[in-house]
Amino acid sequence: RMAENDAAQKPLLTQTTPDMVRGLSVTELERLAGEVRELIIDTVSKHGGHLAPSLGVVELTLALLKVYDPHADRIVWDVGHQAYAYKILTGRAERFHTLRQLGGISGFPRIAESPEYDHFGVGHSSTSISAALGMALARDLGGKKHNVLSVIGDGSMTAGLAYEGLNQAGGMGLDMVVVLNDNEMSISKNVGALSLFLSRKLSGPLLTKLKREVEGFLKSVPRIGEDLLKYARRSEDSFKGLFTPGMLFQSFGFNYLGPINGHDLEELIEIFEQVRNLKGPILVHVLTKKGKGYAPAEKNPTYFHGVGCFEPETGQALKYGNCSYPSFTEVFGQTLCELARQDEKIIAITAAMPEGTGLTRFREEFPSRFVDVGICEQHAVTFAAGLASQGFRPVVAIYSTFLQRSYDQIVHDVCLQNLPVSFFLDRGGLVGEDGPTHHGVFDLSFLRHIPNLVIMAPKDEAELRLMVKTALSHNGPCAVRYPRGVGLGSPLSDGLNPMPLGQGELLREGKDALLVAIGNRVHPSLAAAERLEREDGLQVAVFNARFVKPLPEAQLMELAERFKTILLVEENVQAGGFGSAVLELLASKDMLSGRTIRQQGIPDIFVEHGSQSELRARLALNEAGIARAVREVLAPAAKL
Amino acid sequence: RMAENDAAQKPLLTQTTPDMVRGLSVTELERLAGEVRELIIDTVSKHGGHLAPSLGVVELTLALLKVYDPHADRIVWDVGHQAYAYKILTGRAERFHTLRQLGGISGFPRIAESPEYDHFGVGHSSTSISAALGMALARDLGGKKHNVLSVIGDGSMTAGLAYEGLNQAGGMGLDMVVVLNDNEMSISKNVGALSLFLSRKLSGPLLTKLKREVEGFLKSVPRIGEDLLKYARRSEDSFKGLFTPGMLFQSFGFNYLGPINGHDLEELIEIFEQVRNLKGPILVHVLTKKGKGYAPAEKNPTYFHGVGCFEPETGQALKYGNCSYPSFTEVFGQTLCELARQDEKIIAITAAMPEGTGLTRFREEFPSRFVDVGICEQHAVTFAAGLASQGFRPVVAIYSTFLQRSYDQIVHDVCLQNLPVSFFLDRGGLVGEDGPTHHGVFDLSFLRHIPNLVIMAPKDEAELRLMVKTALSHNGPCAVRYPRGVGLGSPLSDGLNPMPLGQGELLREGKDALLVAIGNRVHPSLAAAERLEREDGLQVAVFNARFVKPLPEAQLMELAERFKTILLVEENVQAGGFGSAVLELLASKDMLSGRTIRQQGIPDIFVEHGSQSELRARLALNEAGIARAVREVLAPAAKL
Ligand SMILES: [Mg+2]
Ligand SMILES: [Mg+2]
Repeated sequence: RMAENDAAQKPLLTQTTPDMVRGLSVTELERLAGEVRELIIDTVSKHGGHLAPSLGVVELTLALLKVYDPHADRIVWDVGHQAYAYKILTGRAERFHTLRQLGGISGFPRIAESPEYDHFGVGHSSTSISAALGMALARDLGGKKHNVLSVIGDGSMTAGLAYEGLNQAGGMGLDMVVVLNDNEMSISKNVGALSLFLSRKLSGPLLTKLKREVEGFLKSVPRIGEDLLKYARRSEDSFKGLFTPGMLFQSFGFNYLGPINGHDLEELIEIFEQVRNLKGPILVHVLTKKGKGYAPAEKNPTYFHGVGCFEPETGQALKYGNCSYPSFTEVFGQTLCELARQDEKIIAITAAMPEGTGLTRFREEFPSRFVDVGICEQHAVTFAAGLASQGFRPVVAIYSTFLQRSYDQIVHDVCLQNLPVSFFLDRGGLVGEDGPTHHGVFDLSFLRHIPNLVIMAPKDEAELRLMVKTALSHNGPCAVRYPRGVGLGSPLSDGLNPMPLGQGELLREGKDALLVAIGNRVHPSLAAAERLEREDGLQVAVFNARFVKPLPEAQLMELAERFKTILLVEENVQAGGFGSAVLELLASKDMLSGRTIRQQGIPDIFVEHGSQSELRARLALNEAGIARAVREVLAPAAKL
Repeated sequence: RMAENDAAQKPLLTQTTPDMVRGLSVTELERLAGEVRELIIDTVSKHGGHLAPSLGVVELTLALLKVYDPHADRIVWDVGHQAYAYKILTGRAERFHTLRQLGGISGFPRIAESPEYDHFGVGHSSTSISAALGMALARDLGGKKHNVLSVIGDGSMTAGLAYEGLNQAGGMGLDMVVVLNDNEMSISKNVGALSLFLSRKLSGPLLTKLKREVEGFLKSVPRIGEDLLKYARRSEDSFKGLFTPGMLFQSFGFNYLGPINGHDLEELIEIFEQVRNLKGPILVHVLTKKGKGYAPAEKNPTYFHGVGCFEPETGQALKYGNCSYPSFTEVFGQTLCELARQDEKIIAITAAMPEGTGLTRFREEFPSRFVDVGICEQHAVTFAAGLASQGFRPVVAIYSTFLQRSYDQIVHDVCLQNLPVSFFLDRGGLVGEDGPTHHGVFDLSFLRHIPNLVIMAPKDEAELRLMVKTALSHNGPCAVRYPRGVGLGSPLSDGLNPMPLGQGELLREGKDALLVAIGNRVHPSLAAAERLEREDGLQVAVFNARFVKPLPEAQLMELAERFKTILLVEENVQAGGFGSAVLELLASKDMLSGRTIRQQGIPDIFVEHGSQSELRARLALNEAGIARAVREVLAPAAKL
């Protein structure tokens, strides 16, 4: 394989074991950094991945490995999408070409992948300080001496979980190091007061206030106070220097060092050698450049944050066959803009993902009605509830997996008050290469039991448009869940009418079995029914439920009267999901008897990484798998 | 009613409409404060409630009503357990005697209860800044002019959600006021770096560091720098004054005022009149005394935070008939201590609720292995995951309803990594008077679909002991869920053996129907079966499932073979809950046919407040209701 050659052609990299990094000179480390960057760029260009974050921390990673022992010490990478260099340098260079592929190296640190070097699994943002604090306490209680570090980005620092960890760590005072990897960005541009503070873009009033306080102090000095004050007023710069980002972390009980240049190996190593000898909670503020060392990524770090395949020489994206269809994300964003032109009460809220959730156009067209709250999924939802309580129609667009952070707010702030907040869950179902931390396969189960919530999932992008309209026409909370990836090319209507709640559609008649499907499993179910007719002469009906809640009750009852064999198909865990809702309905109507009902969804496991189609094939959720399931259920009956 | 007389005997209170407060003099307001306090103490002494928090903010509430217009302006009370005075003064004095009773005044602000004055419903901590920010944006987009305020406690400020809101509010710069109600406590003693900072109990190293920086600045002053430095070193106090709590909020872009005496009406009114004319985000730091004005509560604010009935003269708790049995909470705490004596890897973690979760004895006996993280349910779980990743056995004890905040961390940090963290969910099921924000009726549904998690619910306190042992013996994540209140008096064994996973027990044989029950609905099911035998001559079997996951599969299959009528009984929402799990199991085994299966759980609504027994009666979850359900199911069959 060419990818294997890539690693092989890097002489220093191939020879270097994790333990050897400590013995390398700065010059050698700089050469190694170059080889690591090349391997990252080559690999990601072929398979996609998190390029810009990983390129930004190559020197930081090398400095940490030079000073610390990755085996004994515990380095927790926040989110983990920046850990490619760490993986490459801790025994995974040879296998790095399998990155994000089925059975290959994961895109995130995972204990199971490398129990020696990956001390904590990550994927979602802002867990590292809490986890590292737990490790520090474990070390102390166990009478051990190793170092514990969390490496966290400035974007991740905006999440409440990071603050909770910071506050607790500062209060407990255990020995631990938080490395703040500050590139003045989260995935997109950073927001919130914290980022202004970190970058010293202090607002006028704040500075004025702080100055007033110092001036009060200076003035209080007897005799020379007034002179002093005059001097201080002249030396604005030295005054500004007093209010460093460090103040914030110091007020949390951390010893602050920095900011230091995150691409200067010498400086990094010097600082970390100092830090290794310090006690208590320490924050090291490292300034890095996202995408460092690869011009296209430095220029466009948001695009290259997480990227598909590209031409390594130019950074040009490689096009695929069906890429000409718009993605679900794009269709959502377009439709929302159309509706927002007619209804000025619509506000769009994203949690640090304007691009990923398709809201860039909305942001341009309605800047005053667009809010990026940063990596704050909890706040996004409660903030939306506040807006909705005042008569607005907030739309919260968050990936399914990240909305898990907002579960309590959805229950307590939105649904309990029956407020008209619309949730758009992008990346619902299997996301593919990002793997188990990112699959959106729990959403139907964690939402379905919440009273007052309407839950929909479209079969294609045309239906998504109607569901956006439906959600925004309903006077209560709604959630619409759609998959990662391009649409099916279904023609998009101009007009937009809301759909009646709790009504599905019978797409295909039949007599031998009934497939009741939801969302992106409707079309594969249809294809499976066609295949079964073609290959087995079976007449299988297909019903698109559209609504997980309220269920299309009357239609389902009528169908259940007619069919003895029913398969419930969804790209969600079976436990508590859509199929489970249908079982509950039929039980409540005493309609279980005389029927064979099978759930065809995701079993009770965490699904690994791999392409969406590979995973669907494994889980029997594609056309072939669904057809096979129907045959299996019908087989015993056929034998009678 | 005597309670009605209580309000009637308060001349000023009875006459005062919300609008009239603005016209009262400070002397009148002080008299009114006394009447409000009396009404709160009398009412809570009769029905229980959140006494100490509400007593602490009587003057603050009056000052806000004096300066602001509660109808046009938006006051969002964080958590809301301190809003009794607000309720009394906004048209609910006459009905206040119905506090927390079925159909009566809720213990928390609720839009539905008072759309004019309760602008946002609350119950869980730390939502108010986010909600208020949403309201402020709504006001500005709608071209309106009213004021928006959030009143938040220092304890609530430790939660990540509050930080997310603060950071966003500071970044956006909209006009809004955050009133920090600082009583140096959350429910229990406050923890974390923030509380040290607020109370100016700055740690040595932090102060040293800050001093070094100011000293560096002073030294840089030409000629007189060194003298200056000497002076500064002598005037320690004035130096300390430089580092006020305000610094922190200023760094978040807030204009800071305070700290001010929260029981001095004159000072409060003066400050808020100033604040009303200021622009941008403002934080007003108000110092209050929890329990103020009632000696027993001032002396023991933790006990009187949320309290049952007591003698108003002395504060002595009133004893009830069955209070002699230990509560589930106590049995949990005791059992954990027993196990911790034998296993030093056990660490107990609570989120600001050492008393409520029964961990005070553990805290005394194992201080180094007890961690109160503050109101930080997210961090509690990820911190536990960090400990577990290093070989420890962390126990996370959180009320069911508050663990909703940790859903993502349970999925992503604990279960995905299959780490042995044990969750103890107190207040699982209907909690009674605290109502819909506090019922723990979603837990089985939001936990059941998470792979790797073992979920148990004990039928009584004796079984709880065994489940604590079972959880701590299992090498993976476990959750044990038990109800609020006293146990059944079941004898507690000395020895503790882990139970085999996924095994229930048949408690009663039968032939007419089968009750499959979980947790605290097992004994009422047994009683219902006995009643059905007595009154109807029916033979109803009762199976205690013990495990929601893994289900006692073999036993359930065997029973399902024998019974045609099955009722699934749980104190959890039906959607996705325990009964739903049994339906899924039977569907997967093709065992639905020929059976009538009915879920007896909580329907798809938010359950109101009221006593536990009233609510169970309404929902047909008590002995009589379960018996009635069996009769209803059997009736059609009987008619055949
Ligand atoms: Mg960043
Ligand atoms: Mg407090």
